[in-house]
Amino acid sequence: MNQVIETLMNHRSIRKFSDKPLNNVQIRTIVESAQRASTSSNVMAYSIIGVSDQVLKEKLYAISGHKHVKKNGHLLIFCADLHRLEQLDGIEHTENLESTEQFIVGTIDASLAAQNAVVAAESLGLGICFLGSLRNDIQAFNDVLELPDHVVPLFGLAIGYPAEIPDIKPRLPFPAIYHENQYIPFDKQKHFIQEYDQTMKDYYESRNSNNKQETWTEQMSQKYKKPTRMDVGPFVKSKNLNKQ
Amino acid sequence: MNQVIETLMNHRSIRKFSDKPLNNVQIRTIVESAQRASTSSNVMAYSIIGVSDQVLKEKLYAISGHKHVKKNGHLLIFCADLHRLEQLDGIEHTENLESTEQFIVGTIDASLAAQNAVVAAESLGLGICFLGSLRNDIQAFNDVLELPDHVVPLFGLAIGYPAEIPDIKPRLPFPAIYHENQYIPFDKQKHFIQEYDQTMKDYYESRNSNNKQETWTEQMSQKYKKPTRMDVGPFVKSKNLNKQ
Repeated sequence: MNQVIETLMNHRSIRKFSDKPLNNVQIRTIVESAQRASTSSNVMAYSIIGVSDQVLKEKLYAISGHKHVKKNGHLLIFCADLHRLEQLDGIEHTENLESTEQFIVGTIDASLAAQNAVVAAESLGLGICFLGSLRNDIQAFNDVLELPDHVVPLFGLAIGYPAEIPDIKPRLPFPAIYHENQYIPFDKQKHFIQEYDQTMKDYYESRNSNNKQETWTEQMSQKYKKPTRMDVGPFVKSKNLNKQ
Repeated sequence: MNQVIETLMNHRSIRKFSDKPLNNVQIRTIVESAQRASTSSNVMAYSIIGVSDQVLKEKLYAISGHKHVKKNGHLLIFCADLHRLEQLDGIEHTENLESTEQFIVGTIDASLAAQNAVVAAESLGLGICFLGSLRNDIQAFNDVLELPDHVVPLFGLAIGYPAEIPDIKPRLPFPAIYHENQYIPFDKQKHFIQEYDQTMKDYYESRNSNNKQETWTEQMSQKYKKPTRMDVGPFVKSKNLNKQ
């Protein structure tokens, strides 16, 4: 196993950081690594907002409710950004930029960049946590950052010096995620899911903190019990993206 | 610069591979690295279809038109997958899974996993190319793979032994992508874009193959000249995702 694979396999989300801020060299290295990720036809339909201002962090914390939004070494916000393209000289046919296709492009571009940022940060001995929880109120998330039309904030990425070392969380077995030449029907995935339910039950019972008794299936059925974030769709359309 | 950052900074898309197939250990290492990426609340709303069947590759090549779809060491297809969750015991409120929010979750999950796969592959001395071009006919892309409801194929990832070493493509300057605490209005990004236009013109004129005279702005205005892939939006809705 080389150093790169080792970094990838060693990933866990960190939800408790020290106060020590990242320095500019670290930030630049992480963002430049993000920029090297592939991007659809070199459109680079994303932007990254680095949040160092503590007042801004507090406002974002009020949306997310997670302490690591305000206490971290640095906070990056990843946005799908079609605004830059829309403003370029010679760009016509705005309905093209406002299509579902282009919203997918922006979301993928931002995510590929973000994962490179993660890998770079972890290779520097830092920890990370993705913050989809900022979409708990996506309108407020947008307004705090004063984002223009055609820009949608997708998620945050808290980075910092870990003040905890949680266990590595098991994933679904390889054959549930990876299908060979043909999608595996659910009934043939089922026993891998049962296996994983047991794995997760054992994991939650034995892990260092926040012990509980729960299978993955139970956790998922709990999570999807009531519709949540149903305002995200209308919000994205209000930014003139994902329109058709 | 550590070995990880070096791998990230050294990325270029490879569009010409040798015929040598990846072995099972390589495939497993790459997919397991993908699985270690973060996923929203551990929902793992994605699947990967590995394509080794040459007949299937030919069918996908017919959609994409890129030779590296059929000639590579291995081909991975990344899908946003809400089907597995929808089928779990105890899952109610399908409108929740069919929301824009959950389609975003699936798209981000798939993309984070894909970028980890990229980094793992490149660390093993392999090259990669993303294939958004499979969305040129997303209905056919879906049909070739016989994907069920609530599963949307997003992109392919060709992996293999490089038969070319292209130059590294310059990206937009750091300050155009990275904003500090506040979104930079377009008029203040403009001189970075002009700088990049010149960089890209020089790059295209001097690179080893496929020389041309073009700035980024010209390339983008050409790309968006006519609406393309406007069928992606309706297609995704026909799979009962991204509905509201």
